[in-house]
Amino acid sequence: MKVRVHVSLKNGVLDPQGRAIHHALEGMGFAGINDVRAGRLIELDVASTVTDEALDEMCRKLLANMVIENYRIEKVA
Amino acid sequence: MKVRVHVSLKNGVLDPQGRAIHHALEGMGFAGINDVRAGRLIELDVASTVTDEALDEMCRKLLANMVIENYRIEKVA
Repeated sequence: MKVRVHVSLKNGVLDPQGRAIHHALEGMGFAGINDVRAGRLIELDVASTVTDEALDEMCRKLLANMVIENYRIEKVA
Repeated sequence: MKVRVHVSLKNGVLDPQGRAIHHALEGMGFAGINDVRAGRLIELDVASTVTDEALDEMCRKLLANMVIENYRIEKVA
């Protein structure tokens, strides 16, 4: 089973990486960009025996920093 | 318009970060994990005037390293 975990910064948390990307895009001449936020994407290939609870626990304990980040679990196939 | 860009390493490219996550998850007692790949998630908020071609160009020129990475553009709203 393929699982994608999207980790993104919570609203209000400063995002210097996103800001740098925003700045770079503007410097390259791209217009119309209002905001850029940078996050992580973790693709897991797990056995079908792995439960949703286990996936949730992986996110909370290791993949995301719950103080400043949100995560979203997406099952692909 | 909200746009998500998923950047992931191409198949065959060594992924030390994914490997470290895999190892850490196993060390924490999670079983049934076959593979872990780490990537980036970039969320853009752009004006509706920004074309698909411009988004593609941003990815190719800045957001992804086309030598070792693939990207996927997902429009959210």
